[in-house]
Amino acid sequence: MEDKTLSLTLLFDYYGDLLTEKQKTYCDLYYNQDFSLAEIAEEEGISRQGVYDALQRSEAILRNMEEKTGFVKKAQERTRLLEEIRKAALAVKELPQGAPLADTILSAIDGMKE
Amino acid sequence: MEDKTLSLTLLFDYYGDLLTEKQKTYCDLYYNQDFSLAEIAEEEGISRQGVYDALQRSEAILRNMEEKTGFVKKAQERTRLLEEIRKAALAVKELPQGAPLADTILSAIDGMKE
Repeated sequence: MEDKTLSLTLLFDYYGDLLTEKQKTYCDLYYNQDFSLAEIAEEEGISRQGVYDALQRSEAILRNMEEKTGFVKKAQERTRLLEEIRKAALAVKELPQGAPLADTILSAIDGMKE
Repeated sequence: MEDKTLSLTLLFDYYGDLLTEKQKTYCDLYYNQDFSLAEIAEEEGISRQGVYDALQRSEAILRNMEEKTGFVKKAQERTRLLEEIRKAALAVKELPQGAPLADTILSAIDGMKE
């Protein structure tokens, strides 16, 4: 928990619903809203140590989920491949009779946004 | 656990690595290899009730994961959309100068197989 890496924000985004309501609240304040431990403690009326422990526990849960399932890593790979498809579809759009097919592809890609 | 639905096989496929080794073994035998409770009990040297309890517990974990995250449902929707893209790409392949773009798209789709 030394730095607030992109990775934990991302893990929280994917797996956050697996945390308890309190864990979710602290993680949201810490990772998404950039509150300090002291600010969360004051806001939530608990000790700074209590916030720290809850965040540590949450981080362990989130990292364990990703280690076991790799869903976030797979999602990032999909994002990369969808971008390749999107670029190809934009080129298809310029071909004679390509536009309707390109639109079908682009709209399916939009439906897959995560 | 009254019937072995596609759904639980699918949930096990996605979330199985979150189970303990024993739970994984019983689920694999029950859902993938179609063993009966009695057969698993004999194979693993535990009581039939023990197998039943472990499967119940596993099912609760798997269903809870899906209820909280919805990853399997999202994956199924992606499969549907990727199939739309695949069909459009096959049509692109028939257009003049369409083949290389279609191949790019089809190969990206292959990279996304889950």
